[in-house]
Amino acid sequence: MTSNVSVSPSDKGILIVLSGPSGVGKGTVCKALRACAPDIVYSVSATTRSPREGEVDGVNYFFKSREHFQQLIEQDQMLEWAEYVGNFYGTPRKFVEDTLNSGKDIILEIEVQGALKVKQKFPNGVFIFLLPPSLTELESRIVGRGTESEESIRNRMSVALEEIAMMEQYDYAIVNDQVDLACHRIRSILTAEHCRKDRMVSKIQHWMEEVRK
Amino acid sequence: MTSNVSVSPSDKGILIVLSGPSGVGKGTVCKALRACAPDIVYSVSATTRSPREGEVDGVNYFFKSREHFQQLIEQDQMLEWAEYVGNFYGTPRKFVEDTLNSGKDIILEIEVQGALKVKQKFPNGVFIFLLPPSLTELESRIVGRGTESEESIRNRMSVALEEIAMMEQYDYAIVNDQVDLACHRIRSILTAEHCRKDRMVSKIQHWMEEVRK
Repeated sequence: MTSNVSVSPSDKGILIVLSGPSGVGKGTVCKALRACAPDIVYSVSATTRSPREGEVDGVNYFFKSREHFQQLIEQDQMLEWAEYVGNFYGTPRKFVEDTLNSGKDIILEIEVQGALKVKQKFPNGVFIFLLPPSLTELESRIVGRGTESEESIRNRMSVALEEIAMMEQYDYAIVNDQVDLACHRIRSILTAEHCRKDRMVSKIQHWMEEVRK
Repeated sequence: MTSNVSVSPSDKGILIVLSGPSGVGKGTVCKALRACAPDIVYSVSATTRSPREGEVDGVNYFFKSREHFQQLIEQDQMLEWAEYVGNFYGTPRKFVEDTLNSGKDIILEIEVQGALKVKQKFPNGVFIFLLPPSLTELESRIVGRGTESEESIRNRMSVALEEIAMMEQYDYAIVNDQVDLACHRIRSILTAEHCRKDRMVSKIQHWMEEVRK
């Protein structure tokens, strides 16, 4: 009657999308996460801009020609893409899918609009929104970035607030009050997501089949 | 425009219900969790049986007269209850609600039928199902408990399998392969649940109100 088959490891990895308003510290959190969670794969973006000194293809970016990039867009091979200052930037679908199929989790650090585009293609991904500890703190981070005009700061704060309102479409929201705490929360979310019933049910399916014999 | 108000701590605690088939090790996991997560409150059951030597009212159990217990059932003050060997056992609603209202998380360790009754009254609770590493392992734990007959073991395994099928109604399932790992998963689930968007949205509501002014 009983089966000796244990609970098997998940077949597929989980896609985690980390997003949030400009200035919230997505890059800093992701960098800290890399150090403390080497088991997570970090998505590599594609770009049409030229490699800078020391940048390695497939590590810093996938460097593509303009023609190749446009071809990938047409073939629905970009989960999201945008043009900045004359260059294309985007997230190649293949790298994400290959990683998930190999059973590894992959994290995508991306701005809010891009994240929502990814959600259309990967509704089963885990979408995490990074919040500033307070709006004052966000403003001081934006101000602290450089010598922007008062109007530019007002504009950027206004965009940030619109982006915060989009948190509604995410699964989780974490406060970036301390980078190590934010990392701990992201890792906890990932552990919890691996324990979600829907993912676990498929793992013990063979028990039920064994029992029905 | 900007608000100095930080993200506020959650007003309400989270109810965690830990359940699973008989023999899976719910008690052992809960005991280990008590040691490593003193911030979680542990629900105290009510019973009509007499206190044993050393048992303290409100710590081991809430000791009630049969009349008082029945009164509490009639007043819908028991989240679930059952009768075993002539005594009533149940989960008093007031202790759970008072703890949640004070902002603390509370954990309920309970068998599968009771957990599903609690779910009807607290659909927002977090329901965690504890799984054995394998069915063989569950059987050997049941066998290892004493000198039960082969028929009794077969019956208990059959009940356990029916209970495992009820995992469908839970939010999470974790494997009790190692007690410390099981504790880590439960704590991760709790951290993740505190970060769920729906809980966080209410915390930053005042930002949006501030902005709309």
